[in-house]
Amino acid sequence: MAGFDGKVIALTGGVGGAKLARGLTEVLSPDQLLIVANTADDFEHLGLSISPDLDSVMYALADQNDTERGWGLAGESWQAMESLKALGGDDWFRLGDKDLATHLWRSQLLRDGHSLSDTTRLLCQALGLHHRLIPMSDDPVRTLVATERGELGFQHYFVREQCEPKVSGFRFAGIETASPAAELMDWLADDRLAAIVICPSNPFVSVDPILQLQGVRAAMQASPAPVVAVSPIVGGMAVKGPAAKMMEELSMPASADAVAQWYGDLLNGYVMDIVDRNLASSLSVPNKVIPTLMSSLASKRKLALDVLDFSRHLN
Amino acid sequence: MAGFDGKVIALTGGVGGAKLARGLTEVLSPDQLLIVANTADDFEHLGLSISPDLDSVMYALADQNDTERGWGLAGESWQAMESLKALGGDDWFRLGDKDLATHLWRSQLLRDGHSLSDTTRLLCQALGLHHRLIPMSDDPVRTLVATERGELGFQHYFVREQCEPKVSGFRFAGIETASPAAELMDWLADDRLAAIVICPSNPFVSVDPILQLQGVRAAMQASPAPVVAVSPIVGGMAVKGPAAKMMEELSMPASADAVAQWYGDLLNGYVMDIVDRNLASSLSVPNKVIPTLMSSLASKRKLALDVLDFSRHLN
Repeated sequence: MAGFDGKVIALTGGVGGAKLARGLTEVLSPDQLLIVANTADDFEHLGLSISPDLDSVMYALADQNDTERGWGLAGESWQAMESLKALGGDDWFRLGDKDLATHLWRSQLLRDGHSLSDTTRLLCQALGLHHRLIPMSDDPVRTLVATERGELGFQHYFVREQCEPKVSGFRFAGIETASPAAELMDWLADDRLAAIVICPSNPFVSVDPILQLQGVRAAMQASPAPVVAVSPIVGGMAVKGPAAKMMEELSMPASADAVAQWYGDLLNGYVMDIVDRNLASSLSVPNKVIPTLMSSLASKRKLALDVLDFSRHLN
Repeated sequence: MAGFDGKVIALTGGVGGAKLARGLTEVLSPDQLLIVANTADDFEHLGLSISPDLDSVMYALADQNDTERGWGLAGESWQAMESLKALGGDDWFRLGDKDLATHLWRSQLLRDGHSLSDTTRLLCQALGLHHRLIPMSDDPVRTLVATERGELGFQHYFVREQCEPKVSGFRFAGIETASPAAELMDWLADDRLAAIVICPSNPFVSVDPILQLQGVRAAMQASPAPVVAVSPIVGGMAVKGPAAKMMEELSMPASADAVAQWYGDLLNGYVMDIVDRNLASSLSVPNKVIPTLMSSLASKRKLALDVLDFSRHLN
């Protein structure tokens, strides 16, 4: 963008956050942007190492994501899944034929001794991406969801049970010992850092794992760069995923301002959708009310520009 | 078949042998037939446990094999392979999207602690098969091919190098300690056993691993049931695969009678194709010269009937 020459870190989950990440790649050069994805919903399934958020962002950055279905790859087919079902195999986690290649190859690279960052870099290169996408950590962190039906692995809760069981809390197994990505810590300490953007992702299961990594929250607060979040809740509903349902079950109002309150003093600025303009007065954090729905590349680009412009005025 | 009420064991490799195995299932009841497949060309690839011969037979018995391509599943698609190639992944071993499901599910069952026999039984059940197909052993045996380019794993020789390097011999790693399938040994000792059929498969890399399992050859020789092989060489050429090329490289004539000589005193009868009728007089083993090419289900059934009829007269 004209005049924006600092560095930007974007923290993101999967599909929702990926849209803003894609917008940021339109307006920032590769050396200006570091996209950090949640890996706490990674899991091992059918012997494959699956990183749903990394993949959602990677596919979105490569413009290979399926925008109608809302997840996975465009032009996907499902022959393997249909055959797996016919064989009596586990078919609750839908793996497209093309998507399978990503998991097969990531798994092979990890078995060969590559780190998850390294593997992500190789996959992103193969997809022709120039901007940097990294996992929040190379160490395994796994979200466990406390529900009325007991503790469930995140994908079991999210996909197999379709977010149906009532949620009472989350636990990120491995978070105490996982090292945050070295590059993330380097960027957080870089005096050229101009903004830290929290993408419109689920605050509890997409963003919180990143924030809870040793030293990340403290480094964000220590950085002079403003932390700006974009609300994943628009008009009391999650644009995508179970965020609103979770908020209700956690006895929080399912509203854009409640997300800002949940992030608390970490935020220096907050972006809400215009449908929530009546909530602006209730927020103590500086906020900006603009259209946040990103249905086209132009709208992704526009939101990215608006967020960066807003963050510049918070300095 | 009318009047054939004994039991039959069929020893087979992949595609070629599978045709006769399919014919045998047409003329024998499930409790009369035990099909034993070579597993020495099994391998681990991209984290998947792949059993090419078991799969070729399984797909053929289920009438799901691709008869035009000559291997794999009918109606197959290649989206995963194309994506894998685009990612820079190993694509030398062509895994169809539907076929991938077999490997994913077999691998999962093995990881869950099922034996290969158990896994094969579950897969065959899922495909609706009634006849019994078992792996020659639950223990890993791996064919290593001695070539002018050094020793190669079988699939690396067969698929990656397309049988190009000149062969000087074979080694079956693990053969000394692998236990032959208990069911095979039971059937070999069963006094209702009426014939042991060696299907038209590669004698060196498909049949020999089965014969070299501890006790198998001795039990075949001890059984009063005749051992009948069907030549995989027709008119000096292998119907499928590298058998003829291997024979030349091993300084054997690439001919049907040379295969019989190679099996030696194990055989009580030998079936050759009519194009090789001039070789009949050179054989000391009782032989039958009939059409052996199996392009239709009717011709598979006919050859099965002819082989069983021939074996009956060898008693």
